[in-house]
Amino acid sequence: MAVGKSAELNLSAIPGIRIGTASAGIRQNVRDDIVLFELADTTRVAAVFTKNKFCAAPVTLARQHLADARPNYLLINSGNANAGLGTQGLLAAQQCCEALAERVNSKTANILPFSTGVIGEPLPVNKVISALQAAVDDLDTEHWPKAATGIMTTDTRVKGCSRSLELDGATITLTGIAKGSGMIRPDMATMLSYVATDMPISQPVLQSMLNKAVNVSFNRITVDGDTSTNDALILMATGVVDTPEIESEGDSRYAEFLNVLSELCQFLAEAIVRDGEGATKLIKVEINGAASAEDAEKVAYTVAHSPLVKTAFFASDPNWGRILAAIGRAKAQQLNVDQVSIYLADVCIVKAGMRAADYTEAQGQHVMQQDEITVRIELAQGVFSTTVLTCDLSYDYVKINAEYRS
Amino acid sequence: MAVGKSAELNLSAIPGIRIGTASAGIRQNVRDDIVLFELADTTRVAAVFTKNKFCAAPVTLARQHLADARPNYLLINSGNANAGLGTQGLLAAQQCCEALAERVNSKTANILPFSTGVIGEPLPVNKVISALQAAVDDLDTEHWPKAATGIMTTDTRVKGCSRSLELDGATITLTGIAKGSGMIRPDMATMLSYVATDMPISQPVLQSMLNKAVNVSFNRITVDGDTSTNDALILMATGVVDTPEIESEGDSRYAEFLNVLSELCQFLAEAIVRDGEGATKLIKVEINGAASAEDAEKVAYTVAHSPLVKTAFFASDPNWGRILAAIGRAKAQQLNVDQVSIYLADVCIVKAGMRAADYTEAQGQHVMQQDEITVRIELAQGVFSTTVLTCDLSYDYVKINAEYRS
Repeated sequence: MAVGKSAELNLSAIPGIRIGTASAGIRQNVRDDIVLFELADTTRVAAVFTKNKFCAAPVTLARQHLADARPNYLLINSGNANAGLGTQGLLAAQQCCEALAERVNSKTANILPFSTGVIGEPLPVNKVISALQAAVDDLDTEHWPKAATGIMTTDTRVKGCSRSLELDGATITLTGIAKGSGMIRPDMATMLSYVATDMPISQPVLQSMLNKAVNVSFNRITVDGDTSTNDALILMATGVVDTPEIESEGDSRYAEFLNVLSELCQFLAEAIVRDGEGATKLIKVEINGAASAEDAEKVAYTVAHSPLVKTAFFASDPNWGRILAAIGRAKAQQLNVDQVSIYLADVCIVKAGMRAADYTEAQGQHVMQQDEITVRIELAQGVFSTTVLTCDLSYDYVKINAEYRS
Repeated sequence: MAVGKSAELNLSAIPGIRIGTASAGIRQNVRDDIVLFELADTTRVAAVFTKNKFCAAPVTLARQHLADARPNYLLINSGNANAGLGTQGLLAAQQCCEALAERVNSKTANILPFSTGVIGEPLPVNKVISALQAAVDDLDTEHWPKAATGIMTTDTRVKGCSRSLELDGATITLTGIAKGSGMIRPDMATMLSYVATDMPISQPVLQSMLNKAVNVSFNRITVDGDTSTNDALILMATGVVDTPEIESEGDSRYAEFLNVLSELCQFLAEAIVRDGEGATKLIKVEINGAASAEDAEKVAYTVAHSPLVKTAFFASDPNWGRILAAIGRAKAQQLNVDQVSIYLADVCIVKAGMRAADYTEAQGQHVMQQDEITVRIELAQGVFSTTVLTCDLSYDYVKINAEYRS
């Protein structure tokens, strides 16, 4: 199940990026589970990773390699997270990078490893290594759609999008892909996402842009509140376009580029929630008038994580009492219950902390029948706002997570 | 559904407490939904209420009345929470108290009101008032089982227990009842619980005992993480037994009494989790070796609330990767992932942050087949421990909360 129409995947190539995929048969033999990115030497790379303290071995190693050298290759496998395996996991990630380095005549530190899939099972290193040559032979600028498929696990849809913009007469392209469906409550990053552009951008500026874009996109979604051990988002700027590099936030093109980057990240983040495990509805929880950014987030996530609220959405039941109870327990520093208003789309259901006088159940039910619903909560305590995307809690969520080992 | 055998309800009368029940037909006409407690004049009362800022009207009024006078009556209705209704709700609770005060020749401030049931629908005051005389006529010391039934909502089992102890030659009795099944994550109290004893205990000492007992019982359970708007726990000491009053914590009988009180509260709290909505398993999450009490709680509740962990328990799947991921995202101040060990009952599944060398999936599955499972997490960072009780997340949880308005 997934919410809304599946968008067509028109992904533009990014000059300076080639992609190859192959099948290593990590969990099944039918589809490609190895994805290899090759980056032009001019490419600058920025990254954000999970804040889960039990981070996976490839996350630890990728962080090290990023600190040591400029990446030339990204090596990704799906089907196995290589997490929860201690030094054995680190060794496995290291061996994969070494084998690739040998084949492509690179240094191990120039390779960033990524894994996604089941936690706690040893990564079948030999299978991965056996598939490397096929992935290298497959390298091509047009393979973004194959990459978007190759990184999937419990996803039911491929997720990707492209954008372009004009900056001082130069045409700039951005393309990104992502995967993720369960264990989604990114904290600095998402499951796995790779975004590239041909714009020349210095590394510090690229990292600052990425941090800002993530903060309004991947860090504002939740499916189940469970932050993954493997989250990673990589932003690559190949610099192939013949235009001056963006070297500081003072550059007039900075804001324009960041704007499009943020939009692209928001598209990918929303695609993950639309494909949330068992999701039948996309819920936008919008908080206005909070006394602080922290208060806005606390209220937003408490509502977005409440199993009672989420099952009510699944049932199309405008059960505002559950929303109100979630707001009340959110531990906001400043909350006056008599000033809270709640809207379902444009229908005011709670005014001044109680059922709105002219609200009828029929109005609420009309909104709840929609696939995509905005819950707007007005706290009237200050000027801070936030929006969090989530989905409902359905029978299929239980089924997916009870029947399959993830 | 509920976990474990249903215990027989042998509830001892408490001299000084009489109970009457009646049917007001608030939601259905078939069963009693009004419960009235009459307390002897000598009774001291201690109370804890929900910390949800959207607390229900009866909670607000009960707090006021407790501050103003010594309670003689508790008036409880099930089927309607009288919450989310602003001043209209307060007026309704006030009217019920006034009507009862008139009938029993008491003052309004001597009556504590309680409600539980659906949020946001106006309390049918006239129905409640019409049933008052029948409840008064029904007053009897032996009616504890009827009270335990009368306060139920989505509960599938009645919950109550009695204990007795000898203190300096005097035989002391304690009896308590509770209700609760969903919207359970008490924060200072539980849905509704009433505990009484015939022991003479001064009010400040009674309150201190209650706070301590709640902290090791009702404040250590969660079904769905949703703190209710109506939680209340009332402890009554009628003082009918002819023995000196406990007037300070220095009294040698203080610890003995508190011990039995805590045990009784733990029994009731556990009964609520066993009857958690859709529950098929009782899960005890035990944290040892935390660097602080806060860290222990953060880890315990993050594991206990994780939908991925809870669905794995429902599926009897020893999916330790999900437990490990939950520990890692719990935001404990001090956590060294390489020192974490996890046990399912006596089976060590994770040692030093990774799958235990001699662990086999068969061992894990054997434990997961049980109805009642202890997950023990050793953090090896300090000396703080805590235990939280929760249940699994099943299809029936979604069904109960999607199909019924709560």
